[in-house]
Amino acid sequence: MADSGNCYKVKLALEQLALPYRWIEIDSSKGGTRTAQFLSMNPNGKVPTLALEDGTFLPESNAILCYLAEASRLLPADRLGRARVLQWMFFEQYSHEPCIAVARFILRYLPPDTPRRAELPKLMERGNQALAVMEQHLQREPFFAAGKYSVADIALFAYTHSAADGGFDLKKYPAINAWLDRVRQQPRFVALGK
Amino acid sequence: MADSGNCYKVKLALEQLALPYRWIEIDSSKGGTRTAQFLSMNPNGKVPTLALEDGTFLPESNAILCYLAEASRLLPADRLGRARVLQWMFFEQYSHEPCIAVARFILRYLPPDTPRRAELPKLMERGNQALAVMEQHLQREPFFAAGKYSVADIALFAYTHSAADGGFDLKKYPAINAWLDRVRQQPRFVALGK
Repeated sequence: MADSGNCYKVKLALEQLALPYRWIEIDSSKGGTRTAQFLSMNPNGKVPTLALEDGTFLPESNAILCYLAEASRLLPADRLGRARVLQWMFFEQYSHEPCIAVARFILRYLPPDTPRRAELPKLMERGNQALAVMEQHLQREPFFAAGKYSVADIALFAYTHSAADGGFDLKKYPAINAWLDRVRQQPRFVALGK
Repeated sequence: MADSGNCYKVKLALEQLALPYRWIEIDSSKGGTRTAQFLSMNPNGKVPTLALEDGTFLPESNAILCYLAEASRLLPADRLGRARVLQWMFFEQYSHEPCIAVARFILRYLPPDTPRRAELPKLMERGNQALAVMEQHLQREPFFAAGKYSVADIALFAYTHSAADGGFDLKKYPAINAWLDRVRQQPRFVALGK
């Protein structure tokens, strides 16, 4: 789904690793992840799902990133560096995405009178807490893991650079903005939805 | 925090790998994760946090599990096997823990008249969806990744075996119950809170 940050993560990694792939667009907002065919590929009913050449299916955006990045410049080679990548990826899926991506979903995909808008104040509070944790880290470090660009940055870039869609004000976070620019300057960078 | 499933994951891995460690109890329900000292170890303010011998701190339970299990029998050696471990760990942190562990927290730690009880119907619905995905997998496979016991099983065992604390009825899931028994039979198994 081209507008999904979780799917964009996979596209950005594939492009930056120069791996050949075919993109099959599935619109979860129109039930595309709930068909029998899709559930046979990913019983949890979520995009993205990676299909390998042998017909194996791998869901979960951050697991896909680690799989694709294996033995590449996008994954640190040492044990602690790889643990740091995972630390920030689990932070992303637990403390960041469920606030920032969900606020974006409510504002971008649901009608203006949806009762789910009542969730927004809590999502804003928790999302800003996550952004503050990132800001603190990026005041000292150029990237999230092992001092260099990795799939941890790809995972966090996806819904951070688009956080304004969810009503977040990124002007409050100068270190995050500088990091967003560093990510955009990486070789073979592509933008969301392209 | 001895009663936390996320902390229990780390204890179970340390015990099963026969690694020496010192347990420092931090009670998040009494503000123990919000002190300046704790936030200097983990700015995201969550237990568990692993302190390595050189003073490095590593948060996020599932990142800690992968770090500890490196090159051990608890982590598959092949690329797809490790991706499967991560697939189920991200499933755990996104689709399972935020429903099943949070329902347990509301029922076990908050007063009976907490307004947060209004969240329970949605948490029950989504938690049962996650359990159904696990049940479907375990009808065909003995463990979650690569056909053998791994840190993916440890991650999912923590809040699945204690799901009744959150009001979930595990009797509906025979394959999950058989898997819980297989986990309990692993060498050097220890129970939650012990």
